[in-house]
Amino acid sequence: MSITTLVEYHDATDEVKTIYDDIMATRGSDWVNNFWKALASQPELLRRTWQGVKSVMSDGALDSLTKEMIYIAVSATNSCDYCTNSHTAAARSKGMTDDMFAEVMAVVGMANQTNSLANGFQVEVDEQFKNGGRG
Amino acid sequence: MSITTLVEYHDATDEVKTIYDDIMATRGSDWVNNFWKALASQPELLRRTWQGVKSVMSDGALDSLTKEMIYIAVSATNSCDYCTNSHTAAARSKGMTDDMFAEVMAVVGMANQTNSLANGFQVEVDEQFKNGGRG
Amino acid sequence: MSITTLVEYHDATDEVKTIYDDIMATRGSDWVNNFWKALASQPELLRRTWQGVKSVMSDGALDSLTKEMIYIAVSATNSCDYCTNSHTAAARSKGMTDDMFAEVMAVVGMANQTNSLANGFQVEVDEQFKNGGRG
Amino acid sequence: MSITTLVEYHDATDEVKTIYDDIMATRGSDWVNNFWKALASQPELLRRTWQGVKSVMSDGALDSLTKEMIYIAVSATNSCDYCTNSHTAAARSKGMTDDMFAEVMAVVGMANQTNSLANGFQVEVDEQFKNGGRG
Amino acid sequence: MSITTLVEYHDATDEVKTIYDDIMATRGSDWVNNFWKALASQPELLRRTWQGVKSVMSDGALDSLTKEMIYIAVSATNSCDYCTNSHTAAARSKGMTDDMFAEVMAVVGMANQTNSLANGFQVEVDEQFKNGGRG
Amino acid sequence: MSITTLVEYHDATDEVKTIYDDIMATRGSDWVNNFWKALASQPELLRRTWQGVKSVMSDGALDSLTKEMIYIAVSATNSCDYCTNSHTAAARSKGMTDDMFAEVMAVVGMANQTNSLANGFQVEVDEQFKNGGRG
Repeated sequence: MSITTLVEYHDATDEVKTIYDDIMATRGSDWVNNFWKALASQPELLRRTWQGVKSVMSDGALDSLTKEMIYIAVSATNSCDYCTNSHTAAARSKGMTDDMFAEVMAVVGMANQTNSLANGFQVEVDEQFKNGGRG
Repeated sequence: MSITTLVEYHDATDEVKTIYDDIMATRGSDWVNNFWKALASQPELLRRTWQGVKSVMSDGALDSLTKEMIYIAVSATNSCDYCTNSHTAAARSKGMTDDMFAEVMAVVGMANQTNSLANGFQVEVDEQFKNGGRG
Repeated sequence: MSITTLVEYHDATDEVKTIYDDIMATRGSDWVNNFWKALASQPELLRRTWQGVKSVMSDGALDSLTKEMIYIAVSATNSCDYCTNSHTAAARSKGMTDDMFAEVMAVVGMANQTNSLANGFQVEVDEQFKNGGRG
Repeated sequence: MSITTLVEYHDATDEVKTIYDDIMATRGSDWVNNFWKALASQPELLRRTWQGVKSVMSDGALDSLTKEMIYIAVSATNSCDYCTNSHTAAARSKGMTDDMFAEVMAVVGMANQTNSLANGFQVEVDEQFKNGGRG
Repeated sequence: MSITTLVEYHDATDEVKTIYDDIMATRGSDWVNNFWKALASQPELLRRTWQGVKSVMSDGALDSLTKEMIYIAVSATNSCDYCTNSHTAAARSKGMTDDMFAEVMAVVGMANQTNSLANGFQVEVDEQFKNGGRG
Repeated sequence: MSITTLVEYHDATDEVKTIYDDIMATRGSDWVNNFWKALASQPELLRRTWQGVKSVMSDGALDSLTKEMIYIAVSATNSCDYCTNSHTAAARSKGMTDDMFAEVMAVVGMANQTNSLANGFQVEVDEQFKNGGRG
C-alpha cells in the first residue's frame, strides 16, 4: 500500500505515538492518515514534516482555508494524487464550497496554460514587474 | 526580447488594439505588458487567452487577490519567472503584504515537499480522502 | 557560461572532434552549439546523447519538422530556456512559419491547462480511452 | 470516480446539454467523456474550456493529428494519465499508427533527457539561437 | 496494461530476444519487466534505451547504488509511479536499507521545497555560486 | 535582485543574526548566500527551512556528498537555476569531481527520459516491483 511499512498506532514507538496524538488533537479527528504512517518509518522525518505542516498551515496572515486551496493548486500542478485528494478533503472540511473549488481549478488551469506560454514565447519580464513589482 | 515579435500598440491591427484597450481598461493601467504583446502575433490566441484570464481572475466565489496568490503558487512550482514576477506585482497592487507573500511561499514550499514525499513513498489514498473527501 | 568547461573544437580530443564533425555535417552548419560543448567534458555522455538525438530526430514515420515541434512543446512545458530557443531555431530552419509556431504554443497551453484540470479533478479514465483506446 | 460529481447528460441543465451536444457533434461520437462531465459542475469552466479545445485542436496551419501528437507529448511529460490515454485514443482515431506513436515517444524521451541536461549544465543560449533564431 | 502491446519473450523477434537476453544476463534475473516489453513494439527505441540505461547505470565514478538513489529522486519528483517502484526495488536489491531510503526521501522533499522557494522568491545566483562554483 | 528585500547581516534582527551565524559556522564560511537573505524577511520561514536543511543534509545513513548530488538531480529536473548552481558548488567543495558530476547528469538525463516514456506508454507496475519490491 506504500513503498514502506505503514506504522499503525498500536505498533508505534512512544515517540511516534506522541506525534500521532498531536496530529489527531490538532485536527480534532480520531485517525491518522497514511501519509504520516508512511513517514513514521523514519521518526525524525515524521517529526520535522509534521512540525512544518502544523506551523505553516495554521491561521496567520492568510487563513487556513486559503492555504489549503493553495496546497491543492500546487498538488494538481505536480500530479500528486494523494495530496490533491487529501487537501481537497481538508479544504472542504474547512468550508470550501463546490463553487470555490471550481474557481481554484479554473485559476490552476489558466496559470498552467500561461506559464507554458510565457516559457514557450520566452517573454522577457517587463521593467514594471521586475522583482515582483518592487522595481 | 521574446521568441516572436512583440506587437506594440501603434503597430497593432484594430482587432489587437481593441484587446489592448480592454486589457488596460480592465486593469486601470496605461500600458500593456510583454506577455500580451508576444501573443498578439496570433490574434486569436491573444483574444482567447485574454478572455480566459479576464473571466477567471475577476472576483467570484473567491476574491481576485486570493486568485492571484494561487497563480503565484502555480508559477513558482512551474519555474515560470515571467508569471511569478507579473502575478506577484499584481497581487501586491491588490493588497498582498510581505507577510502574506511569505505565507504563500511557505505553503508552496511545504506542498512541493510533501507532494514529492507522497509520490516517493507511493502512499495510497485513504478511504476517507477518496474523491476529495466525497467518499 | 555553463557549469562545466565548454570544450572548444581546437581544444577537443580527436574523439570529440569526430563527433563535432558529425554534428556539423549532419546539420550542414559550420559551428557547434554550447550544449554539445558542455557535454564534451564527458565524451561518453556526448557520444551517446548525440547518437540518440541524431537517430531520433531524423525523418521517419514522422518528418523531422513535426519532431522539432514536439521537442519545443516538451521544452516549453519543462521551462527549459536553452532547448526552447535552440529547437525553435531548428524548426524555423526546417520551415516552421510564425503561424505554425503560434499553433504549437496554443496546443501546449491548452494541454498544460487540461492536464492540471484532469489531475485536479482526479478524473477517471473512460473505458473507451483505456490503454490509449486499445480497450 | 472524480473529485466532483460527474454530470450525466440526463441530469444536465439545458446550458450543459447544449455543450455536450456540440462535443458529440464535433467529434461524431455518441457519448461524452468524463473530463467534460467533471467540468460540468461549473458550466462556465466547461463552456470556456470546450470552446478553447474546439478552436485550438481543429485543422489550421497544423493538421489536427499533429496537434494531437503534441498534446500527447505534453501530457506524458506532465504525468497526466487521463490526458495521455484520451489524446492517444484521439490521435489513433485520426490515423496515428504504432510507428508514429513510438516516434512521438522517442522524441518526448529525448527532449526530457536533454531538457534536464541543459538545465543541469546551465548551458547558456548561443547567440545564433537567441529568440528562437531570430537573433 | 499499457498503451501499446507488451511484447512477450515467446512472441518477440530474434532482435528483441537478444536484447531481452542481455537485460536478464546483466541483471542476473530470469524475467523482463513491463517497461522493456512496452518499448519492444519499437525495436530501435528498445535497443537505444537499453544501451543507454546499461551504460549509464553501471559502476563508474559513482557506484550503481548511488545512481539508483539518484534515479529514485528524479522519479519521485516527476511523479512517475512505474520508475519510483522499479528503481526502489533495484536499489534495495543492491543494498539500500530503509534508513537510506528515508534519507533519500528527506533530501528529495527538502530539494523540492527549496527549489520552489528559490523560484518563487526569484533569488539571484550569488557570485560565489555562479557556474556551480567555478566562478 | 529578488522578489523580497535581501536582509543583510548588519540590518538583521538578533534572531536572524543568530541563524546567519549558525549557517556560517555549520559551513565554515564567512558569508551568507542570497537564498537565506531572501527568506529572512520572514524569520520563522528562515528558521524552519534552515533547521530542515541542516538536519537533512548532514551525514547519516548517506554521506553528505551523496545527498548534495541527489539535491542537484532534483534541482536540474525542476529547472531551478539557483539550487542547481548552489548545490553543485556545495558538492564540489565536498569532493565531487568533474567525472562524478557528469555521471550525476547522465543519470538525471536517463531518468527524465524513462520517466516520460513510462508515463507515455502507461506501463503498469510489475508485480515484482510493487511497493518498491516489498511485494
